[in-house]
Amino acid sequence: MSAAAAPVLALSGGVGGAKLCLGLADVLGPDLLHIASNTADDFEHLGLTVCPDIDTVLYTLAGLSNAEQGWGLAGESWRVLGALAGLGVDTWFKLGDRDLATHLWRTGQLAAGASLSAVTRDLVERLGVPAHLYPMSDDPVRTIVHSDEGDLPFQEYFVRRQCQPAVTGFSFAGLQEARLQPDLAALCRQPALAGVIICPSNPFVSIDPILQLDSFWKILRDRAVPVVVVAPIVDGRAIKGPAAKMMAELSMPVTALGVAEYYARHYPGLVGTYVIDHSDANLVTAISRLGMEVELAATIMREREDKQALASFCLELLRQ
Amino acid sequence: MSAAAAPVLALSGGVGGAKLCLGLADVLGPDLLHIASNTADDFEHLGLTVCPDIDTVLYTLAGLSNAEQGWGLAGESWRVLGALAGLGVDTWFKLGDRDLATHLWRTGQLAAGASLSAVTRDLVERLGVPAHLYPMSDDPVRTIVHSDEGDLPFQEYFVRRQCQPAVTGFSFAGLQEARLQPDLAALCRQPALAGVIICPSNPFVSIDPILQLDSFWKILRDRAVPVVVVAPIVDGRAIKGPAAKMMAELSMPVTALGVAEYYARHYPGLVGTYVIDHSDANLVTAISRLGMEVELAATIMREREDKQALASFCLELLRQ
Repeated sequence: MSAAAAPVLALSGGVGGAKLCLGLADVLGPDLLHIASNTADDFEHLGLTVCPDIDTVLYTLAGLSNAEQGWGLAGESWRVLGALAGLGVDTWFKLGDRDLATHLWRTGQLAAGASLSAVTRDLVERLGVPAHLYPMSDDPVRTIVHSDEGDLPFQEYFVRRQCQPAVTGFSFAGLQEARLQPDLAALCRQPALAGVIICPSNPFVSIDPILQLDSFWKILRDRAVPVVVVAPIVDGRAIKGPAAKMMAELSMPVTALGVAEYYARHYPGLVGTYVIDHSDANLVTAISRLGMEVELAATIMREREDKQALASFCLELLRQ
Repeated sequence: MSAAAAPVLALSGGVGGAKLCLGLADVLGPDLLHIASNTADDFEHLGLTVCPDIDTVLYTLAGLSNAEQGWGLAGESWRVLGALAGLGVDTWFKLGDRDLATHLWRTGQLAAGASLSAVTRDLVERLGVPAHLYPMSDDPVRTIVHSDEGDLPFQEYFVRRQCQPAVTGFSFAGLQEARLQPDLAALCRQPALAGVIICPSNPFVSIDPILQLDSFWKILRDRAVPVVVVAPIVDGRAIKGPAAKMMAELSMPVTALGVAEYYARHYPGLVGTYVIDHSDANLVTAISRLGMEVELAATIMREREDKQALASFCLELLRQ
């Protein structure tokens, strides 16, 4: 198998990760792209099992996402949410009608005994998603945000409280008991695996849970799997989400260097190449000192071409 | 407490029962009407707990029901169902968007540990329903339809198969282990209870489960609680639903007499007064021979006034 036809594994959270996954799917085609999705921000709401990161990847790769809004589905409607409000229910979590169909189908299948992996594979087929997509685990793992207002389940922090509480740390309930999704474990034992791309997702709440599951990061490091990270911070800001705010509250430098230091400290020897935006060129020397190769690219993915270009760039790094 | 201010208990299935309950609520006011709802046609669908009979009573008494369609909610929309169909899911059970809000709220509350009684009481308050409404039990009871096509869960028979299989009998999974809802048990111990009205609902799948729970019918009979039944068959036809078809398949006479014989055989000594439609006056003598008082009334409830008139008539019978 040539390097060009080798499978690639992407680790992804929500919106930012899904953008790069879309580019990777465009470049690689459907058979070679494998995506491990964070499930630590999954939650149970109104009896439904909601998997925000899986769904963001599903919708983005199926061409169904609402690009303007940055989350959710295009052409979404809100009839059920309106009816819930009419019942006097607190509708803090915005469940659209189209989105609800996904949650209902998933919840029904899970109730009938299917694994989250099986339901995800089924949704990949139903939506025509051109990639292999896996939850990081079939076992529930749930992020708890430690904050100046106490411990909050992730969606309480993220959606209900709009990330306002200042974070002091994170823990992942269920992580110790959870097993890495079996296909992911098998993929990492494949000699053909070209490498792993860690998407520009939140390191604390999207990537940490995946890397820590069953010491996944040690398996990757000990097998010398090439790992490329795309920095989720550009010019001191997160493109989307609370990563920058969290870093400031954790007294970290809010830069791509800060994230690189975090990866180097928590996952020593894991990251081979670290991709930063051209605008952060001043950080190259400092990041290099952490023992990573540093590469400059255009990492802000507005258009489809931006996603494809960054994907091609990362794939080329794996090939080297 | 005068008889006029005494509580009344109505036993109800879906549409036909809910019509009489609406009339009873109009006549009695909100404090005196207690309704025991069949839950044996409840089912789990797409992870949701759906309670069709409870919801029909809720929606009817809240003034939200779709009178033209005969089921569901007025102003209903079908966005989620369309999205499920778009996912390639078999949408045999018609879940409207407004209706879904009820199922979601209920399922979420049940998942959080609330009893079906508590959720039902909560929905009564949220929807402004002018009555006390109880599930017959907080424990799951599920009707199994025995048919020439084998055993079918009730909603498979009723909705998916449109009542086409010929029935040979019924059983109620969980009935032996289920306990009568505690408030209903307490109500029947109240000396003030004016009596029980068995609404014009399907005797096999709506009323049997309620009467058989914890031998409820024996409690009522042994305490000599006045029981009035409104016949669900008028002029050889069921106003709504498969009762007449079922009776024919069970080789019963498809008449109000057939239903009276059924109650007399299965619940001897329970029914004090049996109300039939004027058009069935020819059946009076035969029904009287079963040991019931027979009364003639207009039992087809098209308009609100029809419901109120039949309700007043039944209440007057209890008072005698």
